[in-house]
Amino acid sequence: MAENFDVAEPAETDPLARMPMRDEEGELRPEFVAEVTRAIHAADRPLLCEVVAELHEADLGDLIAALEPDDRVTLVEITGTDFDFSALNEVDETVREEILEELEPETVAEGVRELESDDAVELLESLDEEDQEEILEKLPAAEREDIERSLLYPENSAGRRMQTEFIAVPPDWNVGQAIDYMRDTPDLPERFYEIYVVDVDKHLLGAVPLDVLLRTRRPVPVKDLIDEDRRRVSALEDQEEVARMFGKYNLVAAPVVDTVDRLVGVITIDDVVDVIEEEADEDLKALGGVTHPEELSDTVWTIARGRFNWLLVNLATAFLASSVLGLFEGQLEKMVALAVLAPIVASQGGNAATQTMTVAVRALATRELGSANVMRVVLRETMVGLVNGIAFAVITGIAAVAWFKIPGLGLVIGLAIICNLVAGALGGILIPIVLDRVRADPAVASGTFVTTVTDVVGFFSFLGIATLWFGLK
Amino acid sequence: MAENFDVAEPAETDPLARMPMRDEEGELRPEFVAEVTRAIHAADRPLLCEVVAELHEADLGDLIAALEPDDRVTLVEITGTDFDFSALNEVDETVREEILEELEPETVAEGVRELESDDAVELLESLDEEDQEEILEKLPAAEREDIERSLLYPENSAGRRMQTEFIAVPPDWNVGQAIDYMRDTPDLPERFYEIYVVDVDKHLLGAVPLDVLLRTRRPVPVKDLIDEDRRRVSALEDQEEVARMFGKYNLVAAPVVDTVDRLVGVITIDDVVDVIEEEADEDLKALGGVTHPEELSDTVWTIARGRFNWLLVNLATAFLASSVLGLFEGQLEKMVALAVLAPIVASQGGNAATQTMTVAVRALATRELGSANVMRVVLRETMVGLVNGIAFAVITGIAAVAWFKIPGLGLVIGLAIICNLVAGALGGILIPIVLDRVRADPAVASGTFVTTVTDVVGFFSFLGIATLWFGLK
Repeated sequence: MAENFDVAEPAETDPLARMPMRDEEGELRPEFVAEVTRAIHAADRPLLCEVVAELHEADLGDLIAALEPDDRVTLVEITGTDFDFSALNEVDETVREEILEELEPETVAEGVRELESDDAVELLESLDEEDQEEILEKLPAAEREDIERSLLYPENSAGRRMQTEFIAVPPDWNVGQAIDYMRDTPDLPERFYEIYVVDVDKHLLGAVPLDVLLRTRRPVPVKDLIDEDRRRVSALEDQEEVARMFGKYNLVAAPVVDTVDRLVGVITIDDVVDVIEEEADEDLKALGGVTHPEELSDTVWTIARGRFNWLLVNLATAFLASSVLGLFEGQLEKMVALAVLAPIVASQGGNAATQTMTVAVRALATRELGSANVMRVVLRETMVGLVNGIAFAVITGIAAVAWFKIPGLGLVIGLAIICNLVAGALGGILIPIVLDRVRADPAVASGTFVTTVTDVVGFFSFLGIATLWFGLK
Repeated sequence: MAENFDVAEPAETDPLARMPMRDEEGELRPEFVAEVTRAIHAADRPLLCEVVAELHEADLGDLIAALEPDDRVTLVEITGTDFDFSALNEVDETVREEILEELEPETVAEGVRELESDDAVELLESLDEEDQEEILEKLPAAEREDIERSLLYPENSAGRRMQTEFIAVPPDWNVGQAIDYMRDTPDLPERFYEIYVVDVDKHLLGAVPLDVLLRTRRPVPVKDLIDEDRRRVSALEDQEEVARMFGKYNLVAAPVVDTVDRLVGVITIDDVVDVIEEEADEDLKALGGVTHPEELSDTVWTIARGRFNWLLVNLATAFLASSVLGLFEGQLEKMVALAVLAPIVASQGGNAATQTMTVAVRALATRELGSANVMRVVLRETMVGLVNGIAFAVITGIAAVAWFKIPGLGLVIGLAIICNLVAGALGGILIPIVLDRVRADPAVASGTFVTTVTDVVGFFSFLGIATLWFGLK
């Protein structure tokens, strides 16, 4: 029996052990959220501090998002310095702004002090300048300057995404000195993957990955370990370009330099992953006609207004397409089958064109499509349009004759389908390419243009050929 | 004058200095490709070896892709062991297969030997089993077993993506012993970011990031440095799930364990970045109706066939929608304006529904949309549909009356637009959610269903309301 004392019960002081946050599917448990809400209303500081201390910033972000708006602010206020402000970077911008505006500037400033500079910049950049100023002036001078300098870089530039905490050593140090320095310095960056070698004027000489440092003996000079191939990023470079470089060369970190090649910061892969996801998100939504940034937490009114413009453009193009139908009013009256079948021609062309356009937009975004292969790809897409045009001409033609028992209707709709699939292929590939050349975002604008082409060509070719074939007027 | 001797000319033995590979835009220079092609035809081994040795694997991949098919194989054959086979993982699968099939199995086996296990698996998994076997049997037993074991894991699982080279140390070692071990072992993994602590049976106890190792003094035991919070991945886990974890918790590497928690490999962020990009690519293309994987290097025939199925589904739904128009043939003959305007109602609904669907598909993919907020989002989308429905009802109604001068037509089309935008919103949000619940990929199937809903509801509501209002029959 005495044995049982060895198999001690877990202490269960950890609130996450008593009430797990997520179910087996990884979804937030409503009971957990309810328990935290109860603790907030009861101002149960010890419990809440334990919860926020246990949670990873990403999980804390999910918890915040699940709480009622007022409770979010109260949670931050109650837990005070135990609350990790980087969790606020994990929630929607709308939610983040709401919380930051409700909190006292002193509270925010205290939270910002604990953050790495890139997290601090991300947190502050959503605020307007006045609010930023109010918080910044409560920070120690060195931290304030770092953040202010980053905020001066253009939005979406490497300078905005970099962290200004890094380890830089002189070239005449050896491995042993570098390691001793790291052992003796208490406030190193939270996490790092390489150290940088700089000259007396802070010019970047190169980077040394930590694994290289670890497999090298102490007397070896660090400058001998510099990876010559190592890429550097200009602080003004667009973040999309940086992400492409990271993806292509499999980097986990890259030094950021100013215009005279002085080391000013480091970009790490976690920031780049965010960029990749944002860009994929933007492209995908733009292709779906959601061109205005929106978040799941936005109001009906914000969302409806954001989507209105694109629908208005679409309405204009729909009227344009219908005006082509209007040109053939007489023919439609004489042969109503044409009115019934016309949308099929337009829709089939529109879908084929959208396929082509999607591939083109994606290939342009990843730089797979460039001047080296553009002719070949345009030719290929046209041929694909022709091949599928012929295939669907036969299928649609047979179906149309079977339905309306009008001889000749099969040939007419078949020819129109071929015309429209070839036109759609050309539109689907050329429109994104042209938009890219004139530096417009192909993902945003292509869709409207492309389906306008297939609606207009579809209606015009079908009714035009029908007019000639059946001698309508 | 003697001073000039100090300003030495660069040695210029580096062929990339004599003929740079890329222009200022970062695009491959055609002159460079031509020069390499010339060297291949002249079998200029020294020059080619220098070129492939200088190039990063990603750049070498780009070069390969730009060469003519025959020249690609010849380049690998001429440069032999100087050729880095991981470059072949950077080109389209079609190109990779072509090259691997042309090469002698001995050449491929020699190239594979030099690769990390994850790169080797990636290279071999595109081949059929017979070709794989032929290459594998030429490898040393240990390497062959590692690769074979990885290939046994299901496609798209963590086991397929992991590398089996890692550093594992016993818990009773201290920091000094771990560092000495790394200094004394010649064949460490090419690049690593953390070391792992395992017990005698290889059970994973935890991971120690390299920066933690570097900032800790030599006598500290490694088991004290284990990050308790550290996530581990099951080898059977889906790669998409792994990518989500990396993104959420900002990881650069994660240990992979088997079913009994033994360490079997490591997944690193570069593989995860590839997964994120692939998944974004798949979703985007699926939404655009490109559901069959295709590459820019595929032939017209492959592409046309791949896209055919989706167009066939679309044709069926287009006929379904047109059959609704067919129900109202009598009315269309009596009032041809209805035939002209009907596509506008369908198109406006289709576009609004596509916006909703895009947001829903994306939110499901990122797990932002879950049971916690599904009711709120469905309600919000319906309200957005109603708000924009009313807005476009007014605009379209006025435009229709102005065009056809038929009193009442404005009211009829307006009501139909409201019906269709609300139906589109409901379809756009509910269809992806239901598909996700039944474990179908919402990105692939939603589009067809959603536009079928808006075509059918659009035509039916417009012509139905018109029939009632104008007393047509």
